[in-house]
Parts: sequence; structure tokens; C-alpha cells
Amino acid sequence: MAQIKELKRAYGFDDVAIAPGEVTVNPEGVNTSFTLDGHEFAIPFLASAMDAVVNPAFAGELHRLGGLAVLNLDGLQTRYADTEEIYSDIASKPREEATAFLQKVYSQPLQDDLVSQRVEEIKASGARCAVSVIPANTKRLAPIVKEAGAEIIVVQSTVTTVKHISKSQRGLIFSELVESIGLPVLVGNTVSPEVTRQLMEQGVSGILVGVGPGAACTSREVLGIGVPQVTATIQTAFARDQYFEDTGRYVPIITDGGIRTGGDVCKSIAAGADAVMIGTPFAQSHEAPGLGFNWGMATPHSSLPRGTRIEVGTKASLEQILRGPSSLTDGTQNLVGALEISMGMVGASNVREMHQAEMMVAPSIKTEGKIFQHAGLGS
Amino acid sequence: MAQIKELKRAYGFDDVAIAPGEVTVNPEGVNTSFTLDGHEFAIPFLASAMDAVVNPAFAGELHRLGGLAVLNLDGLQTRYADTEEIYSDIASKPREEATAFLQKVYSQPLQDDLVSQRVEEIKASGARCAVSVIPANTKRLAPIVKEAGAEIIVVQSTVTTVKHISKSQRGLIFSELVESIGLPVLVGNTVSPEVTRQLMEQGVSGILVGVGPGAACTSREVLGIGVPQVTATIQTAFARDQYFEDTGRYVPIITDGGIRTGGDVCKSIAAGADAVMIGTPFAQSHEAPGLGFNWGMATPHSSLPRGTRIEVGTKASLEQILRGPSSLTDGTQNLVGALEISMGMVGASNVREMHQAEMMVAPSIKTEGKIFQHAGLGS
Amino acid sequence: MAQIKELKRAYGFDDVAIAPGEVTVNPEGVNTSFTLDGHEFAIPFLASAMDAVVNPAFAGELHRLGGLAVLNLDGLQTRYADTEEIYSDIASKPREEATAFLQKVYSQPLQDDLVSQRVEEIKASGARCAVSVIPANTKRLAPIVKEAGAEIIVVQSTVTTVKHISKSQRGLIFSELVESIGLPVLVGNTVSPEVTRQLMEQGVSGILVGVGPGAACTSREVLGIGVPQVTATIQTAFARDQYFEDTGRYVPIITDGGIRTGGDVCKSIAAGADAVMIGTPFAQSHEAPGLGFNWGMATPHSSLPRGTRIEVGTKASLEQILRGPSSLTDGTQNLVGALEISMGMVGASNVREMHQAEMMVAPSIKTEGKIFQHAGLGS
Amino acid sequence: MAQIKELKRAYGFDDVAIAPGEVTVNPEGVNTSFTLDGHEFAIPFLASAMDAVVNPAFAGELHRLGGLAVLNLDGLQTRYADTEEIYSDIASKPREEATAFLQKVYSQPLQDDLVSQRVEEIKASGARCAVSVIPANTKRLAPIVKEAGAEIIVVQSTVTTVKHISKSQRGLIFSELVESIGLPVLVGNTVSPEVTRQLMEQGVSGILVGVGPGAACTSREVLGIGVPQVTATIQTAFARDQYFEDTGRYVPIITDGGIRTGGDVCKSIAAGADAVMIGTPFAQSHEAPGLGFNWGMATPHSSLPRGTRIEVGTKASLEQILRGPSSLTDGTQNLVGALEISMGMVGASNVREMHQAEMMVAPSIKTEGKIFQHAGLGS
Repeated sequence: MAQIKELKRAYGFDDVAIAPGEVTVNPEGVNTSFTLDGHEFAIPFLASAMDAVVNPAFAGELHRLGGLAVLNLDGLQTRYADTEEIYSDIASKPREEATAFLQKVYSQPLQDDLVSQRVEEIKASGARCAVSVIPANTKRLAPIVKEAGAEIIVVQSTVTTVKHISKSQRGLIFSELVESIGLPVLVGNTVSPEVTRQLMEQGVSGILVGVGPGAACTSREVLGIGVPQVTATIQTAFARDQYFEDTGRYVPIITDGGIRTGGDVCKSIAAGADAVMIGTPFAQSHEAPGLGFNWGMATPHSSLPRGTRIEVGTKASLEQILRGPSSLTDGTQNLVGALEISMGMVGASNVREMHQAEMMVAPSIKTEGKIFQHAGLGS
Repeated sequence: MAQIKELKRAYGFDDVAIAPGEVTVNPEGVNTSFTLDGHEFAIPFLASAMDAVVNPAFAGELHRLGGLAVLNLDGLQTRYADTEEIYSDIASKPREEATAFLQKVYSQPLQDDLVSQRVEEIKASGARCAVSVIPANTKRLAPIVKEAGAEIIVVQSTVTTVKHISKSQRGLIFSELVESIGLPVLVGNTVSPEVTRQLMEQGVSGILVGVGPGAACTSREVLGIGVPQVTATIQTAFARDQYFEDTGRYVPIITDGGIRTGGDVCKSIAAGADAVMIGTPFAQSHEAPGLGFNWGMATPHSSLPRGTRIEVGTKASLEQILRGPSSLTDGTQNLVGALEISMGMVGASNVREMHQAEMMVAPSIKTEGKIFQHAGLGS
Repeated sequence: MAQIKELKRAYGFDDVAIAPGEVTVNPEGVNTSFTLDGHEFAIPFLASAMDAVVNPAFAGELHRLGGLAVLNLDGLQTRYADTEEIYSDIASKPREEATAFLQKVYSQPLQDDLVSQRVEEIKASGARCAVSVIPANTKRLAPIVKEAGAEIIVVQSTVTTVKHISKSQRGLIFSELVESIGLPVLVGNTVSPEVTRQLMEQGVSGILVGVGPGAACTSREVLGIGVPQVTATIQTAFARDQYFEDTGRYVPIITDGGIRTGGDVCKSIAAGADAVMIGTPFAQSHEAPGLGFNWGMATPHSSLPRGTRIEVGTKASLEQILRGPSSLTDGTQNLVGALEISMGMVGASNVREMHQAEMMVAPSIKTEGKIFQHAGLGS
Repeated sequence: MAQIKELKRAYGFDDVAIAPGEVTVNPEGVNTSFTLDGHEFAIPFLASAMDAVVNPAFAGELHRLGGLAVLNLDGLQTRYADTEEIYSDIASKPREEATAFLQKVYSQPLQDDLVSQRVEEIKASGARCAVSVIPANTKRLAPIVKEAGAEIIVVQSTVTTVKHISKSQRGLIFSELVESIGLPVLVGNTVSPEVTRQLMEQGVSGILVGVGPGAACTSREVLGIGVPQVTATIQTAFARDQYFEDTGRYVPIITDGGIRTGGDVCKSIAAGADAVMIGTPFAQSHEAPGLGFNWGMATPHSSLPRGTRIEVGTKASLEQILRGPSSLTDGTQNLVGALEISMGMVGASNVREMHQAEMMVAPSIKTEGKIFQHAGLGS
């Protein structure tokens, strides 16, 4: 029977706010740790598998600070033995030549020996090693990276579903992959509670949440597709909670995309995320290999443009971005400190208590000249 | 009994987003074809019957690319034998003289022999011939264009209803027209499900949807009238589906007006459109006769202004606009590629499956510096 | 019992749009006339009782065009015999001296003989004479203006209620006034359905609707008070309809304030207004005495500022503003033509049929470069 | 059982408007007084405990005008004997050095003898003395200030709850404090109806309402936490009313934060506040010690930035800001006059009647060129 299409309201970071709790907790006393299939991390922060964000050295530093970096195995790190020169060339190109140069740089073939080498470099830094592969390369590269010592595999595409219909490929069966590889597999991205459930039933160890989250996201402009991150997180978190109730297995979800400030981190966790994956704010660290630039690696279609190079600047050390001290009031530094204080104000002792925070629709409007006026929190 | 007026919320392109599906489909495998009363088109794109968009050569090129151009029979093409000079004169006038010059140019009488000639020129290019007439000219011109070989007639006015009350005219009876002419008749514009149903019952072969769709549309400013396109499409698509259920006849609806990007195309189809009609983005093609300008032909009232000339620029070839490759990330090029990928992400193998896509209210805000960060879709 | 305050959503002109109807009517065939206690006006347009808008000559011209001007009896016209010089002085003051000069100019005492004289001047122009008095002056001036030949009295204050509690004044009893004066009395402003009903029960002949309608209205900024005009009109129109059902007496309501374009006029009528009262758009006419300026006469409190002088410019003749032809597409000219076309598109043959128009929430966003693309309405 | 998180819509000052009442009251006849545990104030205005707003002299002047200033005992006044030089140094620093200088200035230790001295200075001015302490200093300073003659103690932190979980501190028990000190205790800030109730049950004499109220508030950006003030006020006022019904004790709530205009004051009271606490608008007075600057004292975390210095300008005398006459139409002057007129238009004779005002959602959009057009209110 014909039905009129109904539209549900969806919310992004700028549309919502967290309400303080009825009880407060001392920020020093909160536990922000995050567990992924037995691996525990002191802080619920992952670095995006973007070439301008993560190289082996960055992975080492983020490990030292308590988080987890994911190295992109489909980019520069596995196409070039000497990446330093490439990064420097990308950064130095004039704006009008950058896109063409990126297209050329990425047309080089992947070298399997570099795959092993990068994993070993991360291991040598003392860090846990997480690597990202695209679905088409997963079966071939998974044994190589496991052999080299990788501990977590991330399989990431623009939209991930359990069933992909294609004439040319059989597609990736996640349950087979999980079984054959014997390592935790993180899969994404999705925004669908149904797909979240199906992926969990396939045995994956974590879900990346986020498709075209930003109001200004390219996939929104070009494809019309996208779900604002707060709604995406709320609905996939609900699927996780139901799956946990039904099976007793708790599979974390990680909000990935569109996070710019400490406030966005706090809202992600309050909406139900177990961790966040950070791109641009980490690309702005001294340790990021991109030298103050960032670029996407989207190739959704042979005749659509590859990601544009964007100058993001170099703002502070990774430690300062995560742990402060901050000299800015715009929320881009001391992301962990912000999360701890926010959890304290909500009265949440750990991430799963933060999931219970009350949130409300309260659109933000950027203005200036406001002052934060009260004294310290119970200190 | 007195009743308080209730207002229903309506949505435009910028208010909504499409959610990805639970299944994905390879973009190469999707079928975007569109059928109009037996005529099949590879891509669901029509070109607006605007003088700055369609001339016979443009119609030939759009046919080659799989779409359908509609030639305006109430404009320059049927008032001037040599149109090239006129277009060039319009383009070269200084801004302050343009409106007056357009008024003068359009005050010339229509020449019936040019009507036949333009139809024959389109046929000579190998293209299917669709022509647009205003209601007042329909009865006189319909036999002429049919005789000359036209295959589809478009009868278009600002607001089309089945019943028009007028002292001076009997008005057009669509059922008589459809019967007498023996060609597919496309009628518009409407946004009303009731009118959609009534027009289908009169035997028309397609409906153009859209009245004052843009938030900044002249008819919104001047007349207060307008329905945002997503809501207009959803409610007329519902009428089409009900009519199909009741009668077994499927009459396509075509979203016409306000489409600027690939995202808008995808949202139109997801909202229920069988095809889209494109104006300005096609006026920006090298093939458009308007030489980088566009203008409306609205004459709703003798003392309201004729359409203003707007400089839209010449951006790319029609092929690039429809099929890429695109060097831009703003969604204005590779409209067909965008639709294919979007359908793939939604898991829709054809246009009617795309009608089932989940949509949500998720207002877009234009910002800059965001990056499209994930790897290719299952490729 | 304690109750949590509930907030209802209210809508202004920019928040809504009118949907076209299922039937269309030829614009030449619509009847826009408006009746006020036996006085019939060809067009439902009143001019605000503002000094910069209405003088006797303006009243004559608006009468000729079918509308009704209201002369302010608490301003310049009744304080100065020779107003031309005063207007010219106000217009020529530098911006920084204007407010102080206005305060000085308005501190002159009212001259009762000028009250009679202005009424007689309007009558001499052949126009129907409507004059506006403030509540405090009503009892004293009403007999004078009636004697001089005025036909309609407007009693206007910022907020009008039937009951006003004051230590110093007994206040105006509208039922006594109506009975004693024997002329139609227009009262306002209100936005309340209850007050509308009460005023009708007191025998008034029309209600002015609008308190702080604009989102940027001074009373919104300063006092926090205001109701957007579409909601104000809908709810007072509902009270009018109920009163008419209960008593058989139809008392028109007039939307007053915030109207800038033809679209706003059409939305007012569609929301239920019987007529509109226009300020700034008429202040921009060649005939307005304000010489391209407008100013309010608000004195809500002795220590709050008198209205600021604003330069509105002189745009066109009053005839062009009301009847066109228009050379602009921003909706500020040919207001009557716009209303006729809008009614035609809705299928409304007269104002009371226009009250049945479907409206929707469809926020407008000002952008540029859109084109009004369809051919004439069924003509 | 797993539940999907629901988001409730929250509203700030710019989202709402007050509807005029069915009865009007003469502004001269309204009573705006506010009572705090036996202390009566002619006007419901408190000055924020900010260093740039309140010093003893300011407290004296605000007392003369009918309100109550709160002196911050954790800032400059209790760290420096000669504050004049410090204020002057802060104001004269170049922008880029200001934050570092503030950090240095505030690193000086608190001097208990200055605590007594400031209280005595306020008493000497003839004013009632209210002082603000942070929770950690409350037990130590409370006896000192009482001894020195303070009449009201304000205990303020970013978020106040009755239960605070901390490893290092037992925390403040409000019921013990209230009992031991024998002075009215004002506590804040909260936005929670539950916490409001609990604080009232602990015996506090007033509640400060507001956490991250502004859309652009630092705590919104940095921590994601904040509740728009209208919603915060409505829901805490509801708790107050319920507590009053249950116990017969009426504990006032004071909206604190984000108030800029007379309209904001009126909306706070209409939403249910008994009084408002004003920061920046008072920092703009000639009497404010900040010399045209304001700065927050937020130290929510050792590694987040201290409040930034913002230039707010010096606009008018405190008397003009509160009582006019005003030469501005932006609502920043004559705040008391605005409240009186607004109450008159609503028909509220006192603050508790103003709590019954009808409010609606009616977003404001800043534009220019509108005119406030009606004559005076029943005057």
C-alpha cells in the first residue's frame, strides 16, 4: 500500500548540549578508559587512518598518551619507502596544482613489503599496532599484517554493510574474515542500527560510526547522503545496547568524523560512543606527518574528484591537544581534560555512566564577547 | 464551524539528507533509466524549456548523453529565424539595460513556421523531440508540432490545475487535448497531490512538480506562494503511487526547479521523483545557447517584471556536467555519477528502489575546510 | 497546582509559505474588496497612522487608488500649522542630531483647531476620513473630529485590552465610546483571541492586529514582548470567525506591522486578515510626507527613547507601489497585483476565500541568483 | 532494558517572546520588588560576583538604586590592598599579554584580613553586604565575613549539586553550612529541577540558575555542557513552585548568565525567575571597576585557560543602565523601565504575576531598519 514518506529529525554536534547532572564527580576521579576486545586504552581517542595524520612515529606518540592510532595501508606509507619527501612535496605545491599532484602521487602501486615494514615500525615504537585496509585489499593484506605483528585491523569504506551487491566481486564476508584472521576487526563506517547489529553478529570487535556527518560534508553536497553524528551515535549505541542485552557481548562503537572540539568529544560520548576517532584536530599537531595540511582519500567514483588538500595549520603538540595546558578557549586543546571535567559535571565516573547523560536540543550560534563566569568546580 | 488554521512543516533540499542503506550496490550496477509513455531514457534528466538552456543543438547533445531536452516554443526560437545574434545581443547588454532589452526582444510575435522548423531541426539531430507550449497556445500549436514530428508535448504554466476559472477563456481541457493530439503530454507545474491525481485521471503522461520551490524564489517574495521541493515531491509521489495502485498505470513525476547539485538530484529521486528537470546547471554548459546567462520568462501579470537576466557563467561541457570527470567538490559536476554512487550507497538498483530510501531532516550549513575522509565504496 | 510553562511555536512572514490551490482563478476575476461597517474599499490596504506616511494629500491619493489612509492626530499634523517646513527640517538633520530634534519637535502642544482643520482637508480631497487618536485623547477629540466630518476613528496604543488597571485614570470604556460617538471605531493593537473577542463584544468595528511582530522589533529587544504576525493573525482571525458564528456580526481584522512585500500581504490575507495596514512601504512613496524617512512615535515610557529616524528612501509613486508596473523583483511594488495573482493561484475569488488557503512552515533564506522560470498563469 | 536517548528541545532568550496579556496595568503601578529571606529589594537585580563588575563602591551605588551587588571574595579584592592599580594594569595591557597577566595577577594568595576589610567597606557605604565564596573556601571564610557584618553569603561554582563525589574532599554539606552560619545562603549554579529541590531542602535561601547558558558560551564549546536560560529558568521555577506548595516556604530563583538586554530580563522573569543576576551590562557602567573590560574567573581545570579579557566598553552610568533615560533602542539601558512596561503590557502587578505570562517560541533574527510604530501605552 502506498505510503507517504516520513522524515525524522536528526541532530549534529552544533544542535545539542549536555545537561549537568544531579551529582558531580571530581574530574580527577573519572575513568575515561576504553576497551577493545581485551586491549585497554587509558583515553577513548583513536587517530583517523588518514595519511596526513598517522605515520609510525605519530602512532608511537599517541600510544604514549594513552590512545590508539590507525595507520592507513592504502596510502603514502605503503606506496613510498621514503615518505618524508612526498609529504614535503605535497605541502609545498601551490594550491592550484595540489589536487593534480595528489592524484599523481596516489597512482603509484602499493608495495606489500612496505606494509610489513610499517607494521614493524609501529611495533618498534612500543605502540599497539592498528592498521586500516580497504575492503578490496583486506583478504590479501590481513595475513601479511598479522604476520608482521599488527594487533587490530580496521576495514573501512564510505558505507559499510554486511551485504554488498556487485557483479564483479563476491564481496567481503566479515564473519569469514573475523574467523580466519584471529585478530580484533574494527569495521565501518555505518550509521544504521540494523547494520550495526548485523556487523556485531558477524563477530566484529568494534564499529566506526559516521557517514557524511558534517552539514557541509562533501558527501552531503555531492551525494545528498549523510547522517548528523549525534543521531548516528544515539541510534547505533542503542543497537549496541540491545545486542549486549541479548548476547552479553559488548561491542564498542566509535564516533568517527566531524569532531573539532572538546565539546564535540563530550557530546559523542554522552550520545553513546565508547570512543572517538579524530582527524583534523590531530592533523594540526606538530607530530602529524601532513605538515599543516590534510587531505581525504575518497575515491568513490573514478570520475569524481579525489580529496582536496586543505591547509589546517600546525597548532600545538599532540600532548597539548590531548592533555593541555591550553592557551585557547575555543575547545580545540586539552580534549581529554575537557572530557574529564564534562564527565565530572555530569556526575559520570566512567564512559558508560556518561552514556546516561541527559542531552537536549539547543542549537549553538557562533557569537563573540561572551564570558565564562563562574568559579572552579568544587575545587 | 470555525477552525484554527494549522501549518504543516515543509522541507527543501537544504533541509534534508538521505540515510545510507542496509545493503549497498555497486554503482556500476545501478540502472538510472526513466520511461515516459514508452520512450526510454538512459538517465532521468530533462533540460528546462528555457531559452538560455535549450536550442536544437543542445537537444541533440543531451539526447546523445541519454537525457531529454524540452524546447520552449514561446520564446526566442519561435520569434527569430536567426537566434544567434539575439543571444549574443542579450549577453552583451550592460546590466542596467538587460531587462528592458529582454522585454523588447520578447514583444516580437511568434512565427508558426519557425515552430515547425525548430521541431525539424531537433529531429535532424537524431534526438527525440519534446517541445513546451503555454496553455493559451496549446490547441493551435499542438497539431503543427505533431505534424512536424515532435514526440512529446509539455504544457507548462506557473500553477497548473484541472479547473481554471476565467471570464475570458474556456480554458484548456487536458483530457480533450490528450485524446485529440495522440502524443504523450507532460503537464505542470503542480505541488498538490489532488491536482496530480486529477491530471493523471485526465490521461497525461507525466507531471512536472515544483511551484516556487526556492526559499529565495521570486514567487515566494512577490506572491507568498511556494512549496519546498522535497515536500512537493514526497506528496505528489504519494499521489502517483496511489494512482498506480488503483489503476495499474504508472505516471512519472519530474521534480522541476531549484536543483543545483548532485545532492539535490539524489534527494529529488529519493523523495520520489522519477526524473529531474534542470535549468541553471545546464545553462552553465558550453552547449547552452545563453552564453553564460540565464533568464526567466515569467509573465504572470502584465505589470510585474519579466524575468531578470542573471550571469551564471560557463563552467564545463554538458558531458562533464552529467558524466564528469569533475574537478570540483561542490556537487555541480558529474550529476549522473553522483546519482549512481548515491543509489549504490542506499542499496537501490533502480530509480523505483531509490524511492524507498530513508530520508531525515538534517539542515545543511555552509562552512568550509571539511574533508571527505573515507576510502572508496567497496571497490 | 504547580505547572511547568509550555511554549507554543509562533510564526512570522518569513517562516511560512502559501500552497497553490486545486483550482485556479484568473487574477482579473478576483475581488479584493474590504468592507468596514458599511464603508467599502476596492483594495484591502490601509496606511499606518504615522507622521512620515500620511498627511491629507496622501489620504486623498490612497482613496483614489481604493484604500484608506489613517491620519495620526497625535503628531506633527496637529502640532504645526505649517508641516512642510518641519518635515523638511527632520529630513535634513544629520543622523546624530535627529533623535534629539524629534524629541523637541514632538514636545510642542497639540492644537485642537488643527485637528478639525486636518479632517476638513482630507474631506476636501474627496477621501473618506479616518483619524487615529491615542486612548488618553479619545474622549476629548472624538466629538471634534466627528463634527469636522471624520467617518472612522482609530484608537491605537501599543497593547490594547478591554481592561486597563491604572491608579491615575479610569481608562477608556470602548462600549461607551462606541455608543456615544456613533462612528465606526477601529481599535488596536492586540494579538490575543480573547481580547479580540472582548473588543468585538464592546461593539468595535475592526481590530488592528500586531504587537512587536518583527523578529528585530524594538519591543522584542527592549521589552521581550511580541507575537510573530502570521500566528497573531491566525489566532485573532479564529476569534473573529467564532464571534461571527455566534452573533452573525462580521468584524474585520487588519494585520498591522512588519509587512514589507507583496508576499507578506498575501500571507496576511491567507492567514485570515481582512486587510493590511502598511507603514514603511508607503513611507517610500513619492506622496509620503516623510521625504524618504520614517520614524516611530513610541513613547511607552518617559525615559525610553522616542522612535529613531530611519532613512527608507523614496522608491516610486504610491500608484506604482500598489498597482505597478514594477521594475523590481523583490516584491516591494505592485502589491495589489501580487495579491490578485496569489489569490488566482490559490483559487480564491475573494478575500474570505483566500482565508481558506493552505499554508505551511517553510522558512525563507535570502540568497541570490535564482530565476523565476515558468510561463504565465493560464493566460 | 536498552532505551534510545530522547532529546528535549531547550530554549534561550533569542528563541522566545512574551505575549501581551488580556489585561494591561499602568507601568507606574507595578511592583518589581524581590525578597530574599527577609531582605527586600526594590528591584530584582543582582550584580554578578565578578571582579570587573563589583567593588565596594559599586555595591553602594547599586544598593542606592534598589538592587544587590555580590562581591567576589576569591579575586582581586581579597588579593590586593590597592586594587585600583591592578585594574588599571589589566586594562592597559596589550591584548596578546592580557591572559598571561591575568594568570599572574590571580596567582597571588588570598589575604583573610582583606576579606574583612571589603565587607566593612560595603557596610560603610550603607549597602546590604553580599559576598561570594567558592565551595573550597566557604567553611573558612563564612565566620570571618559574618563577623565583619556580611548579611548574605553566595556559594558559587560552575555546577552545584548536593552530592559531590571526590577522593580528596568530603565536600560542602549545605545543610550544615546553613545551620552553622545563621545567614541567608544563596547557592548556585544549577539548571536542574531535582538539584533545585534538594538545595531547597538543605535550607538555602536562594538558587542561582544558569550553566553554560549562551549558545556561544565557553562551556558549550569546550565541555559540550549548557542549558539555554529560558528552559533552565522554567524548569527550576517549576521545582520552586512545587516546593512552595509542599512546604509553604518560597525560595527565590535568580537567573544568572547571558542577560544582555531589557528583553532578556523580562523573559527571565516571565519564565519564572524572581530576580536576575547581571554581569556584562553592569561591567559597562561608569561605576564598574573593570574600566571597560570584563573577564571570567573560570578555573575548572588546571590546564584549561583562565578567562579571557574582553573589552566591553564603558557605556553609561549604572543609574542610566537601570533607570534611564535611554538614548539607545537596543535594549541595553533602562532595564528596570523595560521590566515595568513589559509587566504592564502583560498585566502583571508584581513579579509573581509576571510568572504567569504566556510565552512562545519565536526566534529573533537581527535585522535593521524596523520601526516601533505605535503610540504610548494607555498614557
